[in-house]
Amino acid sequence: MMNIAVAQSGGPTCAINASLVGVFREALKEQSIDAIFGSINGIEGMIENHLIDMKSMIMTNEDMELLRQTPSTVLGSCRYKLADWHEDDSVYQQIANTLVQRQIGAFFYIGGNDSMDTVNKLSEYFAEKGLSIRVIGIPKTIDNDLCVTDHTPGFGSAAKYVAATLREISRDSTVYSIPSVTVVEIMGRHAGWLTASSAILHALGETAPHLVYVPEAEFSLEKFLRDVRRQMTKHKAVIIAVSEGIEVPEGVQSGVVDNFGHKYLSGIGKYLESVIRKEIGCKVRSIELNVMQRCSSHICSKTDIEEAESIGAAGVRCALSGETGRVMVFRRVCDMPYTIVIDHVPASEIANCEKFLPKSYISPDGNNISDSALSYFLPLIQGEPNLIMECGIPKHFTLQESVLK
Amino acid sequence: MMNIAVAQSGGPTCAINASLVGVFREALKEQSIDAIFGSINGIEGMIENHLIDMKSMIMTNEDMELLRQTPSTVLGSCRYKLADWHEDDSVYQQIANTLVQRQIGAFFYIGGNDSMDTVNKLSEYFAEKGLSIRVIGIPKTIDNDLCVTDHTPGFGSAAKYVAATLREISRDSTVYSIPSVTVVEIMGRHAGWLTASSAILHALGETAPHLVYVPEAEFSLEKFLRDVRRQMTKHKAVIIAVSEGIEVPEGVQSGVVDNFGHKYLSGIGKYLESVIRKEIGCKVRSIELNVMQRCSSHICSKTDIEEAESIGAAGVRCALSGETGRVMVFRRVCDMPYTIVIDHVPASEIANCEKFLPKSYISPDGNNISDSALSYFLPLIQGEPNLIMECGIPKHFTLQESVLK
Repeated sequence: MMNIAVAQSGGPTCAINASLVGVFREALKEQSIDAIFGSINGIEGMIENHLIDMKSMIMTNEDMELLRQTPSTVLGSCRYKLADWHEDDSVYQQIANTLVQRQIGAFFYIGGNDSMDTVNKLSEYFAEKGLSIRVIGIPKTIDNDLCVTDHTPGFGSAAKYVAATLREISRDSTVYSIPSVTVVEIMGRHAGWLTASSAILHALGETAPHLVYVPEAEFSLEKFLRDVRRQMTKHKAVIIAVSEGIEVPEGVQSGVVDNFGHKYLSGIGKYLESVIRKEIGCKVRSIELNVMQRCSSHICSKTDIEEAESIGAAGVRCALSGETGRVMVFRRVCDMPYTIVIDHVPASEIANCEKFLPKSYISPDGNNISDSALSYFLPLIQGEPNLIMECGIPKHFTLQESVLK
Repeated sequence: MMNIAVAQSGGPTCAINASLVGVFREALKEQSIDAIFGSINGIEGMIENHLIDMKSMIMTNEDMELLRQTPSTVLGSCRYKLADWHEDDSVYQQIANTLVQRQIGAFFYIGGNDSMDTVNKLSEYFAEKGLSIRVIGIPKTIDNDLCVTDHTPGFGSAAKYVAATLREISRDSTVYSIPSVTVVEIMGRHAGWLTASSAILHALGETAPHLVYVPEAEFSLEKFLRDVRRQMTKHKAVIIAVSEGIEVPEGVQSGVVDNFGHKYLSGIGKYLESVIRKEIGCKVRSIELNVMQRCSSHICSKTDIEEAESIGAAGVRCALSGETGRVMVFRRVCDMPYTIVIDHVPASEIANCEKFLPKSYISPDGNNISDSALSYFLPLIQGEPNLIMECGIPKHFTLQESVLK
């Protein structure tokens, strides 16, 4: 018999709790697993020995269903990068103490790039110290920028939100008779996956988004204005999707100061809005999809949620088979019918590297997404789970505020 | 036999096309009605004789179902205020010419305050000129600020989006261990109905929104900062809902100029974010729900959509009974079980006046919504229609771009 622990890390998604349910549900089935601990605020909970008993947190099947449909991380999160243990292993000792004291034989870390670095370092450290504690990484991120895996849990739901919302914004923007431009700012500092997913609409016969700018393509303000002017000759209401991370020469956080002397940290959308207003002079609006693109579980992808749960469960089976220092990944067998298998690879192959949009997904002009990318994106946004509602609003599972200190 | 015409006006909502379907479907049933014209871009289409034959636009039952679930105004919209016809009736003559030439006996105008002013003026003008053309107003606005009617079609869906999204934002904001404040800016320049609807979450056991500021309550920056500081002693992640229209002493559009010499027209959310950052110094984020709050039909209220269709249909019956210059209204019979009846009143009672939140709905401190308001809001957001999907995204009904010039 052994106990296990699980933690969540990095930015929220709609699917990270589904992966937690996957770990929990699979562990419940295993005779060899006794207590299932949840670490509060990611690895910080392991350092501070702040764990909760998940069996007394999730009591019923409805609890599990609610948790699956609850966005964000129910156990809290952190942005914590472990130091190199060869130089300073004091934090590693604290984590090991927690694990040994609680008789934890396997630790599951659900997170992005940085978390996979943690998985890598911890598994190395435990091996070095002769501790038989297995460490398994479960991927998640709306950015879809993890290497090796076909895609990451959380991305499909975010992409579904982005595409559905862009379609609605497109309807909204065409009502008046005067020409207009709408700039929609989408998350992605280095990789343009989520912004590119807005082009899903092209598969549905929409002309929007008429322009798509991702960090992987070079950006020039002159060319941007030419692009916008050309689209305005074709469409009354031009819709532009732009990654927050595209590089503009002047820099966006350009030292704008208000009457208070505050610096305005406005994003690329607001910036491009002001450029269009000045240079073209038409009606223009910018929209930041903000945290809604990562937490709008009311329009999550059923495929995403189910895959997130499956990959969590597969992580438990991987640990039970004796593996450690591995990250679970999806391998796509076929676009249509969409078929994936779950595999695992050494954490070192995934930690600290980023996956970018392939060149073939970006149009030759660098201002849109090519149709060849659509067969990649489309399967990930399919299906809608039956959400449990409460007075007309999707119901959530939450911990007491006092638990999440 | 007579023909009829229908037009849509003002800002988009999720329900304005459902009212159009209501008019169309009811008119189809009537033997005495022949052609059903749609006026492009509201009253502008009537002035310019730019009408389309709706029977060749909506061909199938699926077309009607799709139109019901499509946000915004399929016929386009306008912001056009008719001049006083006693002073200049040239535009009135153009409208009358269109109506007479097309043998239109009844005109239905779906819109907000300004549109009801148009209904009032046109019906007076036609009566004065001895033209037997009936004019009926069908209300819509996410602002819910029309007088007489219990509520307006479009509001329920916007309120459902706001409440569901605030709940998701609340989950998103609690993941990290450091204290934070999130300011959510919600539409409503003069009336706080939509912002107040965020307090629906209190009926579901949520502590958020912890503070709610509406234009109907006096706002002071000093008290605001005191309120925020007090909430921060109780909650790790403080969520604030604020109407775009609250008055701040300094003025929000305060002449901030960037490197380009552009004025930044940032909203109240960004402004309060900067004030909190400066004065309190904690982690703070502002979120503008932007056009998503009026066009997110993927989470529309079934009650709202069904009522919007019913009130459109009732407009047709009202015209057929010989009435003119009337606006259709909802009268609430009971909160629970929720019961409304559809009635109509002279357009002059509704045109150009605004309905504000009653004092009893605002907490004595002026910084939240009282629980007594919840029985008003809750029935309006109930139910989810079965949306027709297309590749994982709600399908829309659209006209050719060329029709909407």
